[in-house]
Amino acid sequence: MNNFRFCVGTDILFGKNQLKNLPKAMQVYGKKVLLVFGGGSIKQSGLYDKLLFELKDFEIHELSGVEPNPRVETVRKGVEVCREKGIEVLLAVGGGSTIDCAKAIAAATFYEGDAWDMVLNAADGSIGKTLPVCTVLTLAATGSEMDSAAVVSNLETREKLTIINSGLLPKCSVLDPENTFSVPEAQTAAGSVDIMSHVMEVYFGSEKTFLTDRICEALLKTVIQFAPIALEEPRDFEARANLMWASSLAINGLCNAGKAHDWSCHYIEHELSAYYDITHGVGLAIVTPQWMRYVLNENTVDKFATFAVNVWNVDEKLDKFEQANEGIKCLESFFKKLAIPMTLSEVNIGETHFEAMAKHAVKHTGLNKYSYVLLNEKDIVAILKMCL
Amino acid sequence: MNNFRFCVGTDILFGKNQLKNLPKAMQVYGKKVLLVFGGGSIKQSGLYDKLLFELKDFEIHELSGVEPNPRVETVRKGVEVCREKGIEVLLAVGGGSTIDCAKAIAAATFYEGDAWDMVLNAADGSIGKTLPVCTVLTLAATGSEMDSAAVVSNLETREKLTIINSGLLPKCSVLDPENTFSVPEAQTAAGSVDIMSHVMEVYFGSEKTFLTDRICEALLKTVIQFAPIALEEPRDFEARANLMWASSLAINGLCNAGKAHDWSCHYIEHELSAYYDITHGVGLAIVTPQWMRYVLNENTVDKFATFAVNVWNVDEKLDKFEQANEGIKCLESFFKKLAIPMTLSEVNIGETHFEAMAKHAVKHTGLNKYSYVLLNEKDIVAILKMCL
Repeated sequence: MNNFRFCVGTDILFGKNQLKNLPKAMQVYGKKVLLVFGGGSIKQSGLYDKLLFELKDFEIHELSGVEPNPRVETVRKGVEVCREKGIEVLLAVGGGSTIDCAKAIAAATFYEGDAWDMVLNAADGSIGKTLPVCTVLTLAATGSEMDSAAVVSNLETREKLTIINSGLLPKCSVLDPENTFSVPEAQTAAGSVDIMSHVMEVYFGSEKTFLTDRICEALLKTVIQFAPIALEEPRDFEARANLMWASSLAINGLCNAGKAHDWSCHYIEHELSAYYDITHGVGLAIVTPQWMRYVLNENTVDKFATFAVNVWNVDEKLDKFEQANEGIKCLESFFKKLAIPMTLSEVNIGETHFEAMAKHAVKHTGLNKYSYVLLNEKDIVAILKMCL
Repeated sequence: MNNFRFCVGTDILFGKNQLKNLPKAMQVYGKKVLLVFGGGSIKQSGLYDKLLFELKDFEIHELSGVEPNPRVETVRKGVEVCREKGIEVLLAVGGGSTIDCAKAIAAATFYEGDAWDMVLNAADGSIGKTLPVCTVLTLAATGSEMDSAAVVSNLETREKLTIINSGLLPKCSVLDPENTFSVPEAQTAAGSVDIMSHVMEVYFGSEKTFLTDRICEALLKTVIQFAPIALEEPRDFEARANLMWASSLAINGLCNAGKAHDWSCHYIEHELSAYYDITHGVGLAIVTPQWMRYVLNENTVDKFATFAVNVWNVDEKLDKFEQANEGIKCLESFFKKLAIPMTLSEVNIGETHFEAMAKHAVKHTGLNKYSYVLLNEKDIVAILKMCL
């Protein structure tokens, strides 16, 4: 077990009608609010009206139209409003993209240069003071409601990069499973893949972390149990509730306590969505099983076998490699059952940019230095070809 | 899944040599420290000297001699020092008793009346402002390093009561597994029982909480795996590390997210240690299996069967009641394997005070109103008799 720091003070208000407790939790940060949201879905669902009713004592400004894979242009727009209006607290209402956009705005408001500059230099301390961010989650997926990270895209430079800073951790998050009842099938499926991916990215590692691994398995089993139910019956409260809480716990530090970083599949997928703007969860579902097959070897087989037995109930009597391969097959079948496209060809992506993507991935991440199984440019191209 | 609030911002510094990060984490609260500790064990182990070295820029006052099941007299002593010296932050170095004592001092310092008065009226809002509490944990057991509760005893009135307030949540806790290498066998065993008990107290409930239940099972399996190793090889880092992190996660809200309260066995055990000052973990090990047998019925059998299968790998093909009984037997055998006395007779407790204890337990808790299986005075006496 490696040393670790765990400090996640987000005030989680979980359950039905928790919106009514938001004003009290939020008012300590100020009254001038920038409400950040995406398309019209929160207006259609009635959440927007409910929000305005609960927040009638606040001064509300709006930034709408945050796109999936939020773009730096939108962040810049938000920064402008925050500075002009003297915004005191950001309220992100939506899924991970909306929350990530709000986080980036929270930091960039106090950054003197351009927002993309801040993103590029985040690892070198470009993020200082931040505005407080609160969230109302409407999609179980990224875990951004309870973590300190945000992912921002720049379509111009074809980059999708992650910033991490303790100031980005939401102060308060309202998690009402009913706010996810109206999430469409495809997004429910992609979100479920995203949750599982966050767990698997850290589950596969070489450290001995018994407790952390068992918690990872608990989360994986939860998504396996409830994602199909949520697809079948979108208004099933228990299914939505379990997926929602799993989303938050998957990436708040609990699943990598005592472990090193990995995130190989995320880094590869970020290239796909930077180049093709595909849904993050879909990209992960395509990449993950092929990454697993590529890195399965004498050194890693024990972990993959444990994954197969503990998560997928694969027969313990099989040989280790058989167990491992059976586990990967189970994962693939599960993703297929969620009706997710499982090859790049199905989402119209060819090999044109594979070399450039591999080069960029290696340059901007620790793929060839710190991963569970080190990956250089050649390896990444090979994995991407397996995904075709 | 019931509504819940989860807000646990303790800054956990986990791992080897984390003590060196304590000054930075603690200095934001002030420089005038009351160092709270128990007997001489932190002097013997060298931890005391290391602490004084790291904290050389702080003004340190001391309150030593905190007893197991900390007493209100010691709390009063601490309050006096805090007021006289203008203490700004409490640093508890020890196990749950020491931390609980520091928490009670943190609250009672600002309470105008007597400390025991504050404890008696905690549910009615007697706790207002509190001093910040930091901890250096030396025993994996109570989870007090990452929760908002403290238990204080009054031997005069034979009462052992719990206070809960968000202000009691430690600001920062140093969890270095090496600080538990020197914990004696009996305490390692009793601490392990305590961790398991915290999980089982909330695991057994009637709510549907799939994810929470799987996390509970992960924690139970961790203690089952590592408590025997820690007893066999006290300096096994992985064993001590897993037990330590399990202790914190068992009672910080993660294991009862979405559930109602229960704590039947704790409430019954508190009477035993209030009357006889026995080790908390030993009392729990004696009471728990008998409580299980007493409350096992048609309504509860499914949960006990799940416990048996998922935690103890009991054969799924058995009939539900057979599974349940087998699970209880496994638990009992496990406690025995830890060399814990398993009957009240073995710790020289007879039935003299059973009626009075049952009466007090019902009066001061929700045992007959909110428990998983409601227990009145007669039930408690019956369970205690089963423990003889």
